[in-house]
Amino acid sequence: MPTTFEEWQEAYGLSPERADAEFLTLSGEEVRPLYTEADLPERDQIGLPGAFPFTRGVYPSMYRGRLWTVRQFAGFGTAEETNERFHYLLDHGQTGLSTAFDMPSLMGHDSDSPLSLGEVGREGTAVDTLDDMQDLFAGIDLGEVSVSMTINAPAAIAMAFYVVAAEKSGVPADRLGGTIQADILKEYIAQKEWCFPVDAGMRLLGDMVQWCSAEMPRWHPISISGYHIREAGSTAAQELAFTLKDGLTYVEQAVERGLDVDDFAPRLSFFFNAQIDFFEEIAKYRAARRIWARELKETFGAKNPKSWLMRFHTQTAGVSLTAQQPLNNITRTAIEALAGVLGGTQSLHTNSYDEALALPTEEAVRIALRTQQVIAHETGVTNTIDPLGGSYFVESLTDQLEAQAYDYFRRIDELGGMVQAVKENYPQREIADASYELQHRIDAGSRVVVGVNRFQHVDEQPIEILRIDPALERKQIDRVKAVRGRRDSAAVEQVLAQLRAAAATDQNLMPVLLDCARAHATEGEIVHALQDVWGDYTETPVF
Amino acid sequence: MPTTFEEWQEAYGLSPERADAEFLTLSGEEVRPLYTEADLPERDQIGLPGAFPFTRGVYPSMYRGRLWTVRQFAGFGTAEETNERFHYLLDHGQTGLSTAFDMPSLMGHDSDSPLSLGEVGREGTAVDTLDDMQDLFAGIDLGEVSVSMTINAPAAIAMAFYVVAAEKSGVPADRLGGTIQADILKEYIAQKEWCFPVDAGMRLLGDMVQWCSAEMPRWHPISISGYHIREAGSTAAQELAFTLKDGLTYVEQAVERGLDVDDFAPRLSFFFNAQIDFFEEIAKYRAARRIWARELKETFGAKNPKSWLMRFHTQTAGVSLTAQQPLNNITRTAIEALAGVLGGTQSLHTNSYDEALALPTEEAVRIALRTQQVIAHETGVTNTIDPLGGSYFVESLTDQLEAQAYDYFRRIDELGGMVQAVKENYPQREIADASYELQHRIDAGSRVVVGVNRFQHVDEQPIEILRIDPALERKQIDRVKAVRGRRDSAAVEQVLAQLRAAAATDQNLMPVLLDCARAHATEGEIVHALQDVWGDYTETPVF
Repeated sequence: MPTTFEEWQEAYGLSPERADAEFLTLSGEEVRPLYTEADLPERDQIGLPGAFPFTRGVYPSMYRGRLWTVRQFAGFGTAEETNERFHYLLDHGQTGLSTAFDMPSLMGHDSDSPLSLGEVGREGTAVDTLDDMQDLFAGIDLGEVSVSMTINAPAAIAMAFYVVAAEKSGVPADRLGGTIQADILKEYIAQKEWCFPVDAGMRLLGDMVQWCSAEMPRWHPISISGYHIREAGSTAAQELAFTLKDGLTYVEQAVERGLDVDDFAPRLSFFFNAQIDFFEEIAKYRAARRIWARELKETFGAKNPKSWLMRFHTQTAGVSLTAQQPLNNITRTAIEALAGVLGGTQSLHTNSYDEALALPTEEAVRIALRTQQVIAHETGVTNTIDPLGGSYFVESLTDQLEAQAYDYFRRIDELGGMVQAVKENYPQREIADASYELQHRIDAGSRVVVGVNRFQHVDEQPIEILRIDPALERKQIDRVKAVRGRRDSAAVEQVLAQLRAAAATDQNLMPVLLDCARAHATEGEIVHALQDVWGDYTETPVF
Repeated sequence: MPTTFEEWQEAYGLSPERADAEFLTLSGEEVRPLYTEADLPERDQIGLPGAFPFTRGVYPSMYRGRLWTVRQFAGFGTAEETNERFHYLLDHGQTGLSTAFDMPSLMGHDSDSPLSLGEVGREGTAVDTLDDMQDLFAGIDLGEVSVSMTINAPAAIAMAFYVVAAEKSGVPADRLGGTIQADILKEYIAQKEWCFPVDAGMRLLGDMVQWCSAEMPRWHPISISGYHIREAGSTAAQELAFTLKDGLTYVEQAVERGLDVDDFAPRLSFFFNAQIDFFEEIAKYRAARRIWARELKETFGAKNPKSWLMRFHTQTAGVSLTAQQPLNNITRTAIEALAGVLGGTQSLHTNSYDEALALPTEEAVRIALRTQQVIAHETGVTNTIDPLGGSYFVESLTDQLEAQAYDYFRRIDELGGMVQAVKENYPQREIADASYELQHRIDAGSRVVVGVNRFQHVDEQPIEILRIDPALERKQIDRVKAVRGRRDSAAVEQVLAQLRAAAATDQNLMPVLLDCARAHATEGEIVHALQDVWGDYTETPVF
């Protein structure tokens, strides 16, 4: 019977390991059989909640004071259908709204563009004009609810629509709370939905951030997003490193524009994935808080403690879901959501079990919501702050992920920073390699996906899924055409000309974008006007 | 910004706590907002896996060496239907079998007794005679598969049927691996399925244990069960304390019968509940290992380290499931199962989502199985041993539960030991009080049950459930009558007379029970013969 670590090692050596197991995290990192006190970091790296370096959480009371915001991402069809789903979610206990836009809206194409054919309203809601934005939030008090919008390349345009829609419902910009994703770097890195070249994309973002910082004290003008980086197949360390480095790049940009870091940084927020490797995810969130706090305090010299806080939204991993045996996805999502909560998330989207097949049905959305409520109210994990604090394994993994992120920071700095690294496809290549590795493990069967490469079930019954009525596309095309018909075309031409002129200078584009919104210019028209000046982006293929 | 614990406390004091939250474990224990290094126990109380006191696990390699046994409890209808379900489970990746007997079999009534009416094959399989036991395991190699049987008061009889059934299929008793629940004390305490007075129940158990210890080296002759104590509404501390004290009482009995503790203790195993309070459950399993090791080593002087090992089966909590919105039970079961795994269980039953409504359908059983497979193969929690070791909260909660168990031990000892305490209804009263308290919290709404007292859903669609064909009862009655018709009645009368005679002496009853099985005596006939000598048990009501 062992009494020392060495004796345990000897005993361990005598018991054979499972032959069919790889003992790697999802990200491919080796996990040791045992972690002990000797693996703990310096005590001051663990610290206290609400205290630098925030490993144990950004607030002194965490969920004892307030639970995370339940925020289910939703959207499909026209603004009217999504508005109905929003009312449904609010009625079922959701506490914030999160808008999914359809692919054409994300790419800057109007619904009546030939490029939009078959995609209108399919994976999100179609928003072409101010009118759609108004319908989207009809009957919802925008001064009360917190709204998140997932849109990136055209974020400044959607922001303009939103601000004007709120203004028309009597809510001024300074009362609007929520966030817009707007994280353009990760589009070039992972999600591939851009409208402009990298530098122009960065400039448009900078204009929006600067304007929001001045006019919208309750708004988080960027949600720096690792989610899509992870969905593209990155490792946890890559998600952590690239996301934080994107964030640090936005901070740099803002500082270069003359903003005081402490005016700006407190309103940055993050968005991470919750993948299925339970402890790796928890450690990732804890490491992210520590790195962000250190960088903001020490590298950027932020004095306001709020600038040091890495606050984040979490979404469970879409790519972890399987089309096979879809009810197994409830289990996956529950465990991923639990990781998000044990990692101290500020808001959470839980995927619906049918999302590998289609947009979720109302029933599937309700179960996903209930998953959060079971975790919040039944499991007891919200009774104490950072319940895993001190765990030899979790603390050691936190350290390890932190070190891996700093390695990436160094490599990116050597390339001349993140913008340059993105132009050179560096993060893109790293992710492609990681994704290839993971797929290789799955194909080889060493990484098991239940129901896919093991534990299959032959005669599966199909489940009922939500089918988007193809008539909705026609309806949306009619809507945008109707707006074009009734607006003052000369006024539209005039604001678009102003926009082109402004885009060629350094002036902040937000005021003229607001004017474009007020004139009922469409998103596509605005994007094209900007492309007239800036051009588009073509990716160098990654092999 | 706080830097010391006192400063954190001050900051915490300034942030209001959620008004609608109780901050209690499911068991009603207060949880503090924060645990730190100062809450850790002595280092030697945490120790190493496979090393005394086994807080971190009973084996040096735990799941790196071998995963837990996936063991879904199953049974309904006649032996034939259950045999078919067993084959289904083995085909879908299950690694051990677990038999649910129907209520009449558990109470010692034959299927054709008027007392069995409407209950035959309803919540488990009906086993009246050796013939049923043979059909139950038809086509399954009992020398290979590990079998668990959940039967208590008539355990010695079921054991006799099983041994003879195996013998007839060519597998001798010394090759049989598995366990039989046989934990009679918890029947008087919680489950209330007895056949005999307490002392007679203890004696019958003792006979079986003694016989199995001599003849069946691979068999675990008692599965000491907290599961039903918890299902009856106990706290985690009561489940822990009463279960371990029952176990220590069986050890005492065996030692009094002249068995060497080291011949006997290594083959005891335990069976715990996994309720929905995630960390309380994990701490409970860790505390159980430590207490058992210490008691066996220090109180009973066991020298064989295997005697110190508290190995256990876990089942997720049936009472935590809701009939409302049954798919939410997949979430509950996933989180409970994860707690069992993080607590180091040796085998696991995951409940099916429809079990609050009926016996599970095959689909629901498959999803429950898949839940274990997702945890085992996708979440990464099996990559390292005791991943929560060192967590300030978990270690502190482990200590706290251990202390609570010792408090109960002292009170039970003051009453003259567990048998006397049971006769005086002491554990029964403690559980009733705890159950009342919990129900009160639920009724008052301070303890939330999603879908029941909060987050209800009005127009719920019923799900498809398994309906047990009432014709199965008739079929089983015909089966037992057919056995009576074809057996040698005089031989049956003769073995039953031998059994009565033996029951009036101190001699071990197992050999004559095996003869009863071989003669095709029914379970009810055997129980009645014993009751002729011993009488039955009447509970003093608990108010």
